[in-house]
Amino acid sequence: MFKELLQEVVDGTEGAVAGLVMGFDGIAVETYTANDEVPTETIGMEYSVVLGQVRQAAEMLELGETREVSVRAESMTTVMRLLNEEYFVAVALLPHGNPGKARFALRMRSAELVTALS
Amino acid sequence: MFKELLQEVVDGTEGAVAGLVMGFDGIAVETYTANDEVPTETIGMEYSVVLGQVRQAAEMLELGETREVSVRAESMTTVMRLLNEEYFVAVALLPHGNPGKARFALRMRSAELVTALS
Repeated sequence: MFKELLQEVVDGTEGAVAGLVMGFDGIAVETYTANDEVPTETIGMEYSVVLGQVRQAAEMLELGETREVSVRAESMTTVMRLLNEEYFVAVALLPHGNPGKARFALRMRSAELVTALS
Repeated sequence: MFKELLQEVVDGTEGAVAGLVMGFDGIAVETYTANDEVPTETIGMEYSVVLGQVRQAAEMLELGETREVSVRAESMTTVMRLLNEEYFVAVALLPHGNPGKARFALRMRSAELVTALS
């Protein structure tokens, strides 16, 4: 079901080009790429390291669990939602894309993902 | 002018409690705190480390310059905008706050900040 869910989120979001469900260890459970030029898994792996550091920082600051992290770079925006202690889901969008919609879609589908992952 | 600008952005954004302009080395140029319980500078220092790592990841992935990073944790959302090679500006909001408005305000004021910092 992961592939279908990722495809629905990516294809339903303006400017979205890829999505993945990945462990914080950088190993992907599933990826979906609408544009073959996007190195989805490499992006996920790099950002999985960053997410681990964000979680640590938020924990140290006693801000509670980290829920979402968005990174807007010049040529790609990445919206990541942390699912549980082990996994996150992410969507990558081109600069003209709608990260708010991606964020909303990930929030709406996260319970489903959490259930499937546990 | 940094204090005034931070105050305008924070006081003009629903749920925002603090703002700062900081170097990636974790040294603050200016901070403004609407709620004294928020450890503004400590949050900035922790996240400055994270921002450095995000920039490195985006650079390695050839995604271009990192422009904005948002982190939503359970008890606080932090919106950060990178200004140049050395500095970033950040606003911290309570969970009911409006990060979209904070992001917009930082975008609108960033040219002004960049000029003042150079």
